[in-house]
Amino acid sequence: MSSRSYINDIVVSSRIRLARNLVDIPFPMKSTAEQAEQALDALENATGAGTELAFEEFEVIKVDDLNDSARMSMVERHIISPELGHNKSAATILNKDKTVSIMVNEEDHVRIQCILPGFSLYDSYAKANAIDDALQDKISYCFDEKLGFLTSCPSNLGTGMRAGVMVHIPALVLNSRLSNIANMANKFGLALRGIYGEGSDALGDLFQVSNQYSLGLTEIEIVNHIHSITKEIIKYERDERNKLLINQEDLIRDKIQRAYGILTNAYMLTTKEAMSLLSLLRMGADLEIFNGVDYSILDSIIVNIQPATLSLTFNGKVDERSRDIFRAEYIQKQLTQN
Amino acid sequence: MSSRSYINDIVVSSRIRLARNLVDIPFPMKSTAEQAEQALDALENATGAGTELAFEEFEVIKVDDLNDSARMSMVERHIISPELGHNKSAATILNKDKTVSIMVNEEDHVRIQCILPGFSLYDSYAKANAIDDALQDKISYCFDEKLGFLTSCPSNLGTGMRAGVMVHIPALVLNSRLSNIANMANKFGLALRGIYGEGSDALGDLFQVSNQYSLGLTEIEIVNHIHSITKEIIKYERDERNKLLINQEDLIRDKIQRAYGILTNAYMLTTKEAMSLLSLLRMGADLEIFNGVDYSILDSIIVNIQPATLSLTFNGKVDERSRDIFRAEYIQKQLTQN
Repeated sequence: MSSRSYINDIVVSSRIRLARNLVDIPFPMKSTAEQAEQALDALENATGAGTELAFEEFEVIKVDDLNDSARMSMVERHIISPELGHNKSAATILNKDKTVSIMVNEEDHVRIQCILPGFSLYDSYAKANAIDDALQDKISYCFDEKLGFLTSCPSNLGTGMRAGVMVHIPALVLNSRLSNIANMANKFGLALRGIYGEGSDALGDLFQVSNQYSLGLTEIEIVNHIHSITKEIIKYERDERNKLLINQEDLIRDKIQRAYGILTNAYMLTTKEAMSLLSLLRMGADLEIFNGVDYSILDSIIVNIQPATLSLTFNGKVDERSRDIFRAEYIQKQLTQN
Repeated sequence: MSSRSYINDIVVSSRIRLARNLVDIPFPMKSTAEQAEQALDALENATGAGTELAFEEFEVIKVDDLNDSARMSMVERHIISPELGHNKSAATILNKDKTVSIMVNEEDHVRIQCILPGFSLYDSYAKANAIDDALQDKISYCFDEKLGFLTSCPSNLGTGMRAGVMVHIPALVLNSRLSNIANMANKFGLALRGIYGEGSDALGDLFQVSNQYSLGLTEIEIVNHIHSITKEIIKYERDERNKLLINQEDLIRDKIQRAYGILTNAYMLTTKEAMSLLSLLRMGADLEIFNGVDYSILDSIIVNIQPATLSLTFNGKVDERSRDIFRAEYIQKQLTQN
């Protein structure tokens, strides 16, 4: 089961996150430094050196050991949440390929997150579940017969699960169909959010569709739900792409070819501009207007040009201007290397 | 004396035009078809097959023998004036390299025009003069001791000469200094006009500086005049380019590199957009920001992408959309061929 086979032109990645809390230790917002450290110790022991968890090896990375750029870069790469680090003894326990991140002392003691590329929600769910089961063999969680897993925020009560997909829907955005999709999602208790930037400023036409509540449904019901809504979104996006091709082929072809021209020649590029141009290339690859660079390269560029991740890759120069110049150089190199 | 040595980054070409009228034949606006034909015959005989005029061989091209595209293309290439063809038996008598065009039955019976590349106003003047002298050995012009050469429009009375240079002044345009230049020119009885498009819509930052009147000054005085104003314009444009480099180098470099990216990748390009992008490349070549394509190629592209000239080079497809697509293809090919 290679992750490559799951690369999808519309669904970029699929994510499952499970919120759990340890018994006998106050929730992170209420715990003392000592109690937070105790929670981290428990998780370190359960996943630590020499042991394997669901056939995976893990590494502990404490947020306090990261500088700002390194922490922000992990946020940009969706490995940790922006909130991780607000509480004491915050850490992530990462597997080798970084598809599983067990956040410790986030809003809850334990947040098991699994992100897989492409439309692979069931695989992601299976993997997160396996980690969850393996951990439950070693540690005890707060669980109520009636309410399910207990969490800091009521919205996570019950399954403690948030499931979501990251979708790339430039044609829906171009044809002003975003509110239709948002309404459809809301009807099913799902939310549509920008991945980078928020709301109408969503960058690169990338959005996350995820459940808003985790109570009253089983885990598999939530996954089924998002899976079928995502299939609808894929269908709509494809319809809108076809409409663009039929009604405005010249314009779309022109936009996509210019995007490539600017990305491979500009001297400076902001994140925002680069994201929208890369979004066009990504759609161009699907419409077979733009060939020669595949999704995996485009998707890695999208992650690597985010401000903090980019700053990590070059030395000393951290002002915005230098970053914009470096971003342009980086993109040009990536797009013209083959 | 190779014309290449005259290629100049700011002065694209230098032009002299002499207006003359034959004795004994009414001016073109007043002449009958027969009289117009008689005027053309006289000029054909003076320049015709077997004879040489000022060491040049000439060819007669009648406007009636040209289709619309062919005529418009000659206008775009500045070989003939837009007005040639309004009167009967209109023709141009062209030398081999098309630097000399003797227009017959334009507003006046004879308009000798010489255009040479670069800042070569004195050469252009010498060449036009030689043709004029050689013609005066064979035909007689309307001349008044007091008024000089008689012409249809009073603004051409006297020397009958219009002298001008085509200048490329993107930095003056970018830094909003155009009105300063126009005022300076006006003070000396000169006019500043867009070459393609008019006024504020002047395309490609290309302008013509020429005398408005030809009475009261000798021919050489007019040429001296324009020559020294042009030297001032060159100096101002260079100053403004240096200011751009000092104050906004990043921005200018970015603009120029993007211009190249769009010109070599766009699927469609209008004349207007292509002209302004090519203008940036032309300036980029001077500022050594953009290398690899020299002025002569850029200048030939600028002429060849004008609508009628472009239409001549492809078959059948003459709608605007096809022309914009073909223009983009043509530019891409020209810019990437070396």
